Amino acid sequence: CISQDIDHILETQSALAVDLGGTNLRVAIVCMKGNVVKKYIQPNPKTFQERMPLILKMCKDAMQDANCLNCRILGVGVSTGGRVNPQEGVVLHSTKLIQEWSSVDLRTPISDALQLPVWVDNDGNCAALAEKKFGHGKGVENFVTVITGTGIGGGIIHHHELVHGSTFCAAELGHIIVSLEGPECSCGSHGCIEAYASGMALQREAKRLHDEDLLKVEGMDMKLSEPITAAHLINAAKLGNSQADAILNKAATALGVGITNILHIVNPSLVILSGVLASYYQAPVQHIISERALFSVQSIKVVTSHLEEPALLGAASMVLDYATRRTY
Amino acid sequence: CISQDIDHILETQSALAVDLGGTNLRVAIVCMKGNVVKKYIQPNPKTFQERMPLILKMCKDAMQDANCLNCRILGVGVSTGGRVNPQEGVVLHSTKLIQEWSSVDLRTPISDALQLPVWVDNDGNCAALAEKKFGHGKGVENFVTVITGTGIGGGIIHHHELVHGSTFCAAELGHIIVSLEGPECSCGSHGCIEAYASGMALQREAKRLHDEDLLKVEGMDMKLSEPITAAHLINAAKLGNSQADAILNKAATALGVGITNILHIVNPSLVILSGVLASYYQAPVQHIISERALFSVQSIKVVTSHLEEPALLGAASMVLDYATRRTY
Ligand SMILES: [Ca+2]
Ligand SMILES: [Ca+2]
Ligand SMILES: [Zn+2]
Ligand SMILES: [Zn+2]
Repeated sequence: CISQDIDHILETQSALAVDLGGTNLRVAIVCMKGNVVKKYIQPNPKTFQERMPLILKMCKDAMQDANCLNCRILGVGVSTGGRVNPQEGVVLHSTKLIQEWSSVDLRTPISDALQLPVWVDNDGNCAALAEKKFGHGKGVENFVTVITGTGIGGGIIHHHELVHGSTFCAAELGHIIVSLEGPECSCGSHGCIEAYASGMALQREAKRLHDEDLLKVEGMDMKLSEPITAAHLINAAKLGNSQADAILNKAATALGVGITNILHIVNPSLVILSGVLASYYQAPVQHIISERALFSVQSIKVVTSHLEEPALLGAASMVLDYATRRTY
Repeated sequence: CISQDIDHILETQSALAVDLGGTNLRVAIVCMKGNVVKKYIQPNPKTFQERMPLILKMCKDAMQDANCLNCRILGVGVSTGGRVNPQEGVVLHSTKLIQEWSSVDLRTPISDALQLPVWVDNDGNCAALAEKKFGHGKGVENFVTVITGTGIGGGIIHHHELVHGSTFCAAELGHIIVSLEGPECSCGSHGCIEAYASGMALQREAKRLHDEDLLKVEGMDMKLSEPITAAHLINAAKLGNSQADAILNKAATALGVGITNILHIVNPSLVILSGVLASYYQAPVQHIISERALFSVQSIKVVTSHLEEPALLGAASMVLDYATRRTY
């Protein structure tokens, strides 16, 4: 018989975390301390018909593994792109980054399949919850996080709480507009920071350069079969490709101006960048703020998240915090 | 002897309100119900040396009149451009719209001169307080107000309270940037909505057209000695001046995009426009939102304030609400 002392019980208390992004569908077992015990990744299917059963299957498989790993799953936390009503556990509306993903009740089917409580929130909001519980946002009253992945998401903590807004559309930071014209965005508008600075936007520009035979420079290792990504653009810029460099500069400027807008609207004391491009963007964003923001916010701290999986950890944090609360 | 019943005492309870704008310095006696009993206007002096004594003189004159008018002044509320620390009653920093107006303690000299409690806040924040107490914001949990005067100010009410931010720089809505380039702004940056859509920006464009002899059109009444203002631009556009029309369209687009950014960051349930250009901007802003915003916020209500003096009334509301509170 395994030890039943209270420390051990607390240690084994865990969450099932689901992250639905523009590219991948991820499920993880996350323990109370914020460690990812096991992780499962699949490409996010393009249709609702395929996506929903895959989510349920991945969750069920993870539940079996959790049992073997001696992790007691308290509930399921779901992070997803799109506007989410967290009270109902429903995705209200998504951009075309995740297709067929509007008016989707996630709580009912997952809760029915696993017989567990389910919490759902927007991916950027989850990233903010992760920073608040495990990252640079610990104990910080007002902060903002901007997460750059396929798209750009964000979350705002005001007086230690998430800002959801009157129609659950607050902190849609990827769709801050920084140009009256500007490139087309996944949301149908144009000039949004997601259309300049997301992984998808940089990939679009990398492909464009590649098609015009302007991407590859001397010393750059690139296989013919390789899919062109943002990484190629960054690599090319480092090796002296001035056009790649100009594109990245514009992306960083757009992101910096977008974040300046956040400072002039909610004036947080800290900005946390996360996602694969975070460390790349940190210095230029700080520079743009010093150039474009009002004096009173020019010295704001912009830091890079040290969390490997903010959206997943935030999804888990809803379970770990709310499932163990006595009152709601 | 005048009646001393409680209704009469409540009726005579009044506030002295001061509004320090980019053009004028205004003082008013405002009664409990929000009526402006008497108002005093002077051009706002360009230097601190002249401005401070004028404020004190206007306040003292108003106090004498208040006495004759049987208005019992409970305190002084000050609305000013710039970032304000309302706890200290200090203007921290202003743009060049109000020169020599940084690190200015307003509470101490006014309180010393009048022997009354003094409250100070940013003009846009005061406008929001006015809407909350007397205007369209009554009982609304989350709303935003944008006030267009010489510059552009704003205030954000979240969970029935003003958002001040970590360095009192929240709701600096005039400095939301909507262009990576764009016209120079009073803040030193460029592409801010204030640089496109404020009275000052429209006046700049009207003067430019006038200098190029492109402003006046047939049927337009314009005296030689008249100073050129935004009103001329609007008048010219109405009479078929296509260049004036294009400038106004761009101004409205910039304002609409800036407000769309507010919706994607704090997602209020209501946007209130005030200032002389409010009714002009209301319809195009609503249209730009329907074109550029995410689906979930496209149907937000944009209304025009019915308050004649939002900043003054908001300054008064701080006195009327806080001076009669038992606890702080
Ligand atoms: Ca968000
Ligand atoms: Ca303000
Ligand atoms: Zn967008
Ligand atoms: Zn500005």
